[in-house]
Amino acid sequence: MSSVEDRLKELNLELPSAPAAVGFYVPVLKTGNLVITSGQLPFIGKELAFKGKLGKEIHDREGQNAARIATLNALAHIKSCIGDLNDITQVVRLEGYVQSADGFNDQALVLNAASELLVDLFGESGKHTRIAVGVSELPLDSPVEIGLWVEV
Amino acid sequence: MSSVEDRLKELNLELPSAPAAVGFYVPVLKTGNLVITSGQLPFIGKELAFKGKLGKEIHDREGQNAARIATLNALAHIKSCIGDLNDITQVVRLEGYVQSADGFNDQALVLNAASELLVDLFGESGKHTRIAVGVSELPLDSPVEIGLWVEV
Amino acid sequence: MSSVEDRLKELNLELPSAPAAVGFYVPVLKTGNLVITSGQLPFIGKELAFKGKLGKEIHDREGQNAARIATLNALAHIKSCIGDLNDITQVVRLEGYVQSADGFNDQALVLNAASELLVDLFGESGKHTRIAVGVSELPLDSPVEIGLWVEV
Repeated sequence: MSSVEDRLKELNLELPSAPAAVGFYVPVLKTGNLVITSGQLPFIGKELAFKGKLGKEIHDREGQNAARIATLNALAHIKSCIGDLNDITQVVRLEGYVQSADGFNDQALVLNAASELLVDLFGESGKHTRIAVGVSELPLDSPVEIGLWVEV
Repeated sequence: MSSVEDRLKELNLELPSAPAAVGFYVPVLKTGNLVITSGQLPFIGKELAFKGKLGKEIHDREGQNAARIATLNALAHIKSCIGDLNDITQVVRLEGYVQSADGFNDQALVLNAASELLVDLFGESGKHTRIAVGVSELPLDSPVEIGLWVEV
Repeated sequence: MSSVEDRLKELNLELPSAPAAVGFYVPVLKTGNLVITSGQLPFIGKELAFKGKLGKEIHDREGQNAARIATLNALAHIKSCIGDLNDITQVVRLEGYVQSADGFNDQALVLNAASELLVDLFGESGKHTRIAVGVSELPLDSPVEIGLWVEV
């Protein structure tokens, strides 16, 4: 596999500049061989790319785009922590929270966009474990929040 | 303590065949000394054994059965990863999400069925830390989702 | 920085006696260099200091107090596990679940009280990654549930 950043270019994607953490916490840190991010929202610059609940204000495809953007933000933070995304030996865990209207049960479909992106970028070592839950409310009315745990 | 699989037999339980992961992720992986599962639903074969929200369509006892089934599915995946459940030195973490109707606050009661099963199977080393939260929606209208972290 | 317990005194705070776990699980355990707590509720003794949903029965300031109390309970458990809070080399992860009424999106504001407390107590090594989600229901109608992962 070509390097992760080459693969991003092939997919016409680029890492954003790592968004600043809001609050008394950090966006990413390393403990042992694990690098862990805070929950990422689909920020583009200082604005959320999408707002609202899946199954109500937000359709599946927008939710999937939001999941991709949040995942790229997580990867940007991980790069800022470890320097080179090629040092990731395994994507360990994706924590996916989907802001869901009553009766919306397609959280897996929304989060598949994030999971597929990780496999596109990292190949077999991009295959991760996943938690997929629907929650009633997320910070700033974000449709998704995504945390990543990777092994380096 | 007898072996974990003997204990399963004594409890008239058996490990299911490990259900296939749906999507671009894996049901289980190992990082360092930790083995981590994806969030498990109460599948029996290809069907959810239960659907609906606790406090509305689903009663406590059904929720507890769902929690046990999801936990057995998690253990089946862990066995497929490490080969022998006796290699587990500590159950580290149970992540328990309970699909809850408005006003349902007995998430602990539902998840106790999963926690009790782990202690029945693993004794003292089955005593884990736990997150117990009620969420508005889960994938496929599942009443529970359970993730396990174990140390080997 | 003075020792963590001196710092608690300066802030006019004290660690509670570690609340007993309810159920078939433990409030804290150590695996490798990580010490992990179960989800903590804002218990003072045997009673929850607050009940209800943010954005409905509970105001921001009460939610922040609840978050601080739950965090102190988590630290009390960690102390009971490792003996000395000064042995913490890094607060790794705060898992924050906020019981939220429909339309409440200030989970970050509520949890900032917990995050700020950790930085007040541990300085730079208190800066953690964070998951902040709003959930529809928590055990016992608690307004917040907080889990901590620390490195020792």
